[in-house]
Amino acid sequence: MTPLPEDLGRSEMREDLLQRRQKVLGRAYRLFYESPVVPVRALGVEIIEADGSRLLDAYNNVPVVGHCHPRVVEAQCRQAAILNTHTRYLTEDIVRYAEKLLATFDEPLERSMFTCTGSEAIDLALRMARMPGRPQGIVISSHAYHGVTALAASVTPSLGASWQREPWIRTVTFPREINDEDRGEAFARIVREAIDDLQRSEFGFSALLLDMALASDGVWLEPEGLLGPASREAQAAGGIVIADEVQAGFCRTGTHFWGHQRQGVTPDLVVMGKSMANGLPVAGIVGTAELVDGFGSQGRYFNTYGGNPVCMAAAEAVLDVIKDECLLDHAGLVGAELQGGLRSVARASGARARVRGSGLFAAIEFADAKGELDPKACLRALNAYRRAGILVGQCGPDNTSIKIRPPLPFSRRNVEEIVAVTRDVLASEAAD
Amino acid sequence: MTPLPEDLGRSEMREDLLQRRQKVLGRAYRLFYESPVVPVRALGVEIIEADGSRLLDAYNNVPVVGHCHPRVVEAQCRQAAILNTHTRYLTEDIVRYAEKLLATFDEPLERSMFTCTGSEAIDLALRMARMPGRPQGIVISSHAYHGVTALAASVTPSLGASWQREPWIRTVTFPREINDEDRGEAFARIVREAIDDLQRSEFGFSALLLDMALASDGVWLEPEGLLGPASREAQAAGGIVIADEVQAGFCRTGTHFWGHQRQGVTPDLVVMGKSMANGLPVAGIVGTAELVDGFGSQGRYFNTYGGNPVCMAAAEAVLDVIKDECLLDHAGLVGAELQGGLRSVARASGARARVRGSGLFAAIEFADAKGELDPKACLRALNAYRRAGILVGQCGPDNTSIKIRPPLPFSRRNVEEIVAVTRDVLASEAAD
Repeated sequence: MTPLPEDLGRSEMREDLLQRRQKVLGRAYRLFYESPVVPVRALGVEIIEADGSRLLDAYNNVPVVGHCHPRVVEAQCRQAAILNTHTRYLTEDIVRYAEKLLATFDEPLERSMFTCTGSEAIDLALRMARMPGRPQGIVISSHAYHGVTALAASVTPSLGASWQREPWIRTVTFPREINDEDRGEAFARIVREAIDDLQRSEFGFSALLLDMALASDGVWLEPEGLLGPASREAQAAGGIVIADEVQAGFCRTGTHFWGHQRQGVTPDLVVMGKSMANGLPVAGIVGTAELVDGFGSQGRYFNTYGGNPVCMAAAEAVLDVIKDECLLDHAGLVGAELQGGLRSVARASGARARVRGSGLFAAIEFADAKGELDPKACLRALNAYRRAGILVGQCGPDNTSIKIRPPLPFSRRNVEEIVAVTRDVLASEAAD
Repeated sequence: MTPLPEDLGRSEMREDLLQRRQKVLGRAYRLFYESPVVPVRALGVEIIEADGSRLLDAYNNVPVVGHCHPRVVEAQCRQAAILNTHTRYLTEDIVRYAEKLLATFDEPLERSMFTCTGSEAIDLALRMARMPGRPQGIVISSHAYHGVTALAASVTPSLGASWQREPWIRTVTFPREINDEDRGEAFARIVREAIDDLQRSEFGFSALLLDMALASDGVWLEPEGLLGPASREAQAAGGIVIADEVQAGFCRTGTHFWGHQRQGVTPDLVVMGKSMANGLPVAGIVGTAELVDGFGSQGRYFNTYGGNPVCMAAAEAVLDVIKDECLLDHAGLVGAELQGGLRSVARASGARARVRGSGLFAAIEFADAKGELDPKACLRALNAYRRAGILVGQCGPDNTSIKIRPPLPFSRRNVEEIVAVTRDVLASEAAD
């Protein structure tokens, strides 16, 4: 019997649902938190649970303009009732969206292709980077997460023990303990060594692939221009740069629409996902005509649902809302308060916690008494935020940082709330 | 300036849109037909073009219960306004859908996982088949199409010249010229040879992967039980069988909900896509607990948009409509008239055309005077249907068959229309 949403507020009904879930979904399905979130509705930056409790969402970047934004809902629903086909027929929606999207990029990024997921987009970008006639070697960061297709998983060392290192992959570890002004050049030297190693191998050097927030490496967004030197090394060596914007894009950093613009990178290919259509499956790549058309000339590629009119309607509404609600400026202003507030309580707390980030993307990294990164402290903090009614995530090596990455309409009042809770969480850690 | 939909009825506006499209979309984007379809709205089995003309849709299987079915539209829109999150939170929708979906399968298929595209689902199934500790060799049909991720493309020889044959792949060619009763056993012997070859190699034999309609090999659905012998060979050899149901599933063949049930196959993994949510990006796999949980235990797999509440709402509405509108029976009854009508006019036409199929899936194969498969005749026919206001597709080796695969609510009157047009198309070919 189907429970009503509010029935799931009762623990025996939740237990029953958990058992039904385990029976029909594969074991790969996991839930966040010791006590799972049971959402029944959401609006803006708030999620309501079955038991009526209200959660502040400081984690989900997919609903980038806010959960259930009425303009996005209206756009996708209006289109769903009229027409939903595919790109082998001629419609204007995908062209209009591509034009608006490309207007947010700088030259020479002038072609776009649309997929449904970020994994598909990474897979496609790597197929372009490694197309016949090009070198095959790829440089990635040592804790990178890029997706779940077989090829995307091969560039995802954050899978841990189950990751199988392909011989054409080189990983580079971001230099954590170097001061701000030298960090970019130090990373460039590490990248250069990996490139040299590939160039001495049978594979050659094809591409440097980096998440533009280095999120799973711990969130590295300062100072501006941080990844410029590494990126220039890659291009000087004859390779291309693939910017993974799945987390850093769509105004996240508060200073630029795209992470690569903040990081001083001029990519040859850009991969987008998550935030693109506020929750409908839309992802894609943008790149140079040379790479994108070169790939298109060599063979067939058709993504049945990719760029369909309903998905494009939602994606276009997201771009329109970002513009009309001035969400880039908003992320900059409110993000500055978030970053300042978190740093201030971290300093005052006496906890071994370090804050990094820019705009509405922050990481709080935990260390133990010996100065080693501390996954247990981070997990305690994650659940403490949950108990205080705030959703955050984890990132960094071995999940040692709290990841704060809310929908963009996060308000000053929301900042005050999360900073106050952070003060309590860190006080409790300092007392441990 | 954004044109109104009806403006695209004017050829200079279409030309302008085509130029804008070429400028922003990669060269991989191609359009069907000499004269592209310019849809502005659709309902049921009909598409209206910008110039007001009406097309009968006998091609698109994605809108399986009919374009813009009001129940599916309503379900997805209601959910979009309330909540759209992901599977790391506990909601009932995905569980309820998985239960309804699994009820259409026979034992031992008891676990499900959801992705956004068929390509992702194929990629995931192959990752399961080839997980560490299992043999790596895969047998596929020689004209197979399975998708566009790097791994899915590696099992897609229908890509033609751009297909790169991996050493762990063996292809088997379906025996075209053998009579009905011997065809299944003949194919099984060919499959057995490929398995033996893999077992002698360093790769071993992991899986037989087949589209359950063999659509891109020309549509082979008769007699019932056709693929049973090959499937049993694979399992007797210690391998698994992966059934690709992206085209054959969802009542398409008119006799069974799934193609493998018609073909006499007991798969270990089933891959679904296209028709699952009437156009929203939903795909997935169903499989044995051993394979699906084995994979889930070995490592992480999380698909951000996969199984989200909005997609699940649409997918559940599709299952409900299929049941409430008796679309399996409908596909059987109307499909029998379609198959009979096409065969009758093909015989009477004097054209070198052969009809195959079952239910609402038919192929009309063209040959030249020497009896060779004739792609030019097929392409002429494709455009002749288009001029007559009917959308059909192409399939088979070198696109030598017309593919008829309409939304399931195709009516008797629709059958009369396509049979009448087929009579004219074949008459014109016979006169050539």
